[in-house]
Amino acid sequence: MNVRKVGLVGGGVIGAGWAARLVINGIDVRVFDPDPEVERKVGEVLANAERAYRKLTLAPLHAQGRITFAASVEEAVAEADFVQENAPEREDLKIPLLARIDRACRPDVIVASSTSGLLPTRLQSAMAHPERFTVGHPFNPVYLLPLVEICGGDRTSEATKQAAAAFYAGIGMKPLHLRKEIDGFIADRLMEALWREALHLVNDDVATVEEIDDAIRYGCGLRWSFMGTFLVYRIAGGEAGIRHFMAQFGPALKLPWARLEAPELTDELLEKIVAQSDTQAGGRSIRELERLRDDCLISVMQGLRSHDWAAGAVLKAYEEKLYEASHRHVMSEGDDLSAPLRLHEARVLPEWIDYNGHMTESRYLQVFGDASDALFRYIGIDEAYHRVGLSYYTVETHIMHLREVEAGVPLHVTTQLLSADDKRIHLFHSLHRSDDGRHLATAEQMLLHVDTNASRACPAREDIRERVLRIAEAHRGLPKPDFAGRQVGAPRH
Amino acid sequence: MNVRKVGLVGGGVIGAGWAARLVINGIDVRVFDPDPEVERKVGEVLANAERAYRKLTLAPLHAQGRITFAASVEEAVAEADFVQENAPEREDLKIPLLARIDRACRPDVIVASSTSGLLPTRLQSAMAHPERFTVGHPFNPVYLLPLVEICGGDRTSEATKQAAAAFYAGIGMKPLHLRKEIDGFIADRLMEALWREALHLVNDDVATVEEIDDAIRYGCGLRWSFMGTFLVYRIAGGEAGIRHFMAQFGPALKLPWARLEAPELTDELLEKIVAQSDTQAGGRSIRELERLRDDCLISVMQGLRSHDWAAGAVLKAYEEKLYEASHRHVMSEGDDLSAPLRLHEARVLPEWIDYNGHMTESRYLQVFGDASDALFRYIGIDEAYHRVGLSYYTVETHIMHLREVEAGVPLHVTTQLLSADDKRIHLFHSLHRSDDGRHLATAEQMLLHVDTNASRACPAREDIRERVLRIAEAHRGLPKPDFAGRQVGAPRH
Repeated sequence: MNVRKVGLVGGGVIGAGWAARLVINGIDVRVFDPDPEVERKVGEVLANAERAYRKLTLAPLHAQGRITFAASVEEAVAEADFVQENAPEREDLKIPLLARIDRACRPDVIVASSTSGLLPTRLQSAMAHPERFTVGHPFNPVYLLPLVEICGGDRTSEATKQAAAAFYAGIGMKPLHLRKEIDGFIADRLMEALWREALHLVNDDVATVEEIDDAIRYGCGLRWSFMGTFLVYRIAGGEAGIRHFMAQFGPALKLPWARLEAPELTDELLEKIVAQSDTQAGGRSIRELERLRDDCLISVMQGLRSHDWAAGAVLKAYEEKLYEASHRHVMSEGDDLSAPLRLHEARVLPEWIDYNGHMTESRYLQVFGDASDALFRYIGIDEAYHRVGLSYYTVETHIMHLREVEAGVPLHVTTQLLSADDKRIHLFHSLHRSDDGRHLATAEQMLLHVDTNASRACPAREDIRERVLRIAEAHRGLPKPDFAGRQVGAPRH
Repeated sequence: MNVRKVGLVGGGVIGAGWAARLVINGIDVRVFDPDPEVERKVGEVLANAERAYRKLTLAPLHAQGRITFAASVEEAVAEADFVQENAPEREDLKIPLLARIDRACRPDVIVASSTSGLLPTRLQSAMAHPERFTVGHPFNPVYLLPLVEICGGDRTSEATKQAAAAFYAGIGMKPLHLRKEIDGFIADRLMEALWREALHLVNDDVATVEEIDDAIRYGCGLRWSFMGTFLVYRIAGGEAGIRHFMAQFGPALKLPWARLEAPELTDELLEKIVAQSDTQAGGRSIRELERLRDDCLISVMQGLRSHDWAAGAVLKAYEEKLYEASHRHVMSEGDDLSAPLRLHEARVLPEWIDYNGHMTESRYLQVFGDASDALFRYIGIDEAYHRVGLSYYTVETHIMHLREVEAGVPLHVTTQLLSADDKRIHLFHSLHRSDDGRHLATAEQMLLHVDTNASRACPAREDIRERVLRIAEAHRGLPKPDFAGRQVGAPRH
C-alpha cells in the first residue's frame, strides 16, 4: 500500500495531530471539519509539531507534505489513499459518517477510525465495504506518541488490519493489535480505571487534582513511561519474581485499596500471568531488569531536569544542595599554588561512548570546560558574578588526544596557568585517569574576560583578577608542558 | 531534626532501597530482618544504587554512610534518630511490631511505616507514643523514585508529619501530604485501579501482560512520567481547556470503558475540578502547556533511545529509516570538489546552551566531530568498515571560537582538506550559521587511520584512500584558511 494522500474527517485535537504527523512524514492530507476555525487550529498544531521534530531528531526529515482543506466529507476523501475519521465520540454520529465516507472513497482504500473505545463491529454496520474498516486509535499528541491501537470488527478483513498497522509503523508509530473487540480497547480501559478512581478521590475531597497528578508523576508514572505495570511488579517481586509478587500482594487485592473489585486470583489466572510474564521478560534476570529499569529512570529524570519540571526539578534541587554542601572551595591565603591545580574530577559516562567504544572527542572538551568552570569557582566567580554580566569566554583551544578511555573510568584534570593579565587567562589542562594516573589528553586554552551585555572584552573584577594573577605568578616557574604552544601537525618532540 | 542514624526494620526490596538511599546521602543505617540472606540482598541493592547514582549525577555525593545489621528489632532502633518500618503488609503483624519499636527507641524519634495503604490510626493503636508515628510510603526503587506519601493517623502530631517530610526532602524525595486518611492512600488507589482493570483484561483473555504493558509504555505512561492525568486532560481539551474536556468526555464516564463506575459528574464536582485545574495550571496557557508537554515527551523519548528500549526503540528505528531514506551520499565521479565540502547540517539544541545563554564550547567540537563523520561516510566508510577494526581517530584539534550562537539556530560545516596521505587527513572545518551565513568557529584537525584491534596506525583501505587523496588533490589549490597552522595565543592576522 503506497499512501501519498490521506483524507482526514474531523480536524480537532486528534485530527490536527494526525495532519501534523502525516505531513511531517511527507504525506499530503486533505482535511474536512465544519469548524470555521479549523485552518487556524490545524496550523497551530502543525507549528507545535514542527517545533517538536526539530528538537526530537537530527535525522533528515522527509520533504513535508501539504495540508489542504475540503468543503465536504466527500471532497476530503475522494482522492485519498487512506482515510482517518476523527469525529466526536458518538456512535449515532460516526455510523452514518463512516457509511458516507465509504460511499465517497475508492474501494481499495482503508477507512480507519480514531475512536477511543466505540466498538468497530457497530461502527462498520452501515458501510457497504465493511471489510476495509478498522479502528486506529492514537494518543495525544498524535505527532509524538507512538501508540496506535488496531481493532477490527466482525467484518474487518485481516488484510486491512495488517496494512493499517504497516502504514502506521511507517510513520513512526507502534501498532498494538487487539485480540478481542472490547469497549474502551486496552489503553482507555486502563486510563479510564485510573481516571474514574481519581474522580472519586476529588469528589470525596481526599486529594486535589494537583495532588493526584503529583502522586502519578513523582512515582508510578516515571516507571510506566518505559515499563508497564506487569514488568514493574515482576521486578518488585525481587529475586523470586512475579510469582512471589502475586503471592505477597494477592491478599491486597481483597483490601479496599481501590473501588474496583479485582478478579478472583485463581490458580489458572496466576499461572497465566506467570507464563506471560516469563515470555515478556525474555530470559532477562531480575538483576538485568533492575539495571534496565534504573538506566531508563535515570535517563527520564535527567531529560526532565533540563526542563526543571516534575521529577527533573526534584533532581535539580537535590544536585544544587549537593554542590552547596560540597562547599565550593574558593582560594584562600594558605593554599599551595606551587603545582598545577587539581580542581575537577569526573567519570566517563556510558552515553559519552562513540562507535569505536571509547569516549567521543567532544566529551574531552566538555571535561576540560568543566575543569575551567572549577577554576572559575576557585577564583571566586559565582552565579551573582554571571548575573551582572561578567564571564570568561573560551576563544581558542588546542587539544592533544593521547589515549582512548572507556566508560566508567574515573578522571581528573590538572590546570597550569601559562600566563594571565587583567582580561586573559592562558592555561593548560591535563586529563588523567585517576585509577592508574595515565595521561589521556591535554588542552591549551585562551580565555577572555567579557562584559556579556556589551559583548566585548573587559577587565575582571579586582578580587578575581588578583587571585588569577597570584596563581599565574606562582605557576611562572613551572616547566612548560609538552604540547604547549603547538600547532596542529607539528612534529612531535 | 538532625538524622545521622536510621533504624530499618525489614530489609526486603523496600527496606534495602531505603538503606541504599540513606547511606548514599551520608546517613548510617542499622537493619534488622530475620531473613538469613539479608546482608547479601541489601548489598546487591546498594550495588545497584551506587551504579545508578554514578550515572544520575556529576554532583559531589556525600561521604557514604555505613550499613550494619542488628540481631533484633530493639538493637536496630535503640540508637536511631529516625526509624523506618518495612515489614510485610499485614496489620496483625505491623501493629505489635510498631508497639515494640516504640518501646525500644528514644522518645523524640520519629517512627515511620512504609506501608502502601494500611491505615495509620490502626497501625499506631498499640503505641505508647502514637504522636510520633506517621506513614512515609515510598516507591520502588526507593533509591531513585522521588515520591513519598505522608499520612498521619488520628493521634499523629502535625510536628511529626512536618519533620518527616523535611527529612525525606533532604534525601532528595518529594513528600506528598494526604489530607485524609484512606485505605491505599492516593498513589496505590490509582495504581490499584489500573492494576485490577489489567488483571480483568488478562483474566478475560483480552490482552496478555505484555500487550497491557505496551498499551501503557508507548502511550499514556509517557505522559504520566511528567504530568498526571488531570493536566494531560486539560491540554487534551484544547483551547477550551478542562471544562470543554469534561463536557466532551463526561458522557464517556457512563460508557462501559472500565469496570469501575465513575462518580456522578455533578455541577459541584465539575466546578471543583475546573477550579483546582486552574490553580494547577498556574496561569500557563494551553499553548504553553502543550510546548512543555512536548519538550518533556521529547526528552523522555530521547533518554529511552539511548537504551534502545520502549518508545526510545521506536524513535531509534524511525531515525534509522530516515537516514536510510536520505541515501547517504558516497562520493562519485561527477562530484564537484573544487570548493570546501558542505556535508553536515545541524541545529543548536536547547540542551547545548550553557549558563551564558550560548552554545557551550564542547558542542562546537561535537558538531565538528559530526562533520568529520559525514566526511567519513562521503569517502565510503560504513559500519562494516568499523566492524573489521578500521577507523579514523582524531589526534589533534585546534578550535577558534569567533561568535556565540543561541538555541534553534541552523548550522552547517564546510570542510577543506589541507593535506592527506595513506594514514593521515589534515583538515579544516568552518562552522557557519545557515540563516545569515555568519562564521562561528573553525577547527583544524589531524586524523589518523588506525587498526582499532591492534591500537596502532595503519593505511586506509585502497578505495577510501583513493577518495581521500582525490579530495586533497582537488583542494590543494584552495587558499589556506585564516587560523590554519595557528598556535594558541598567537597574534591575530
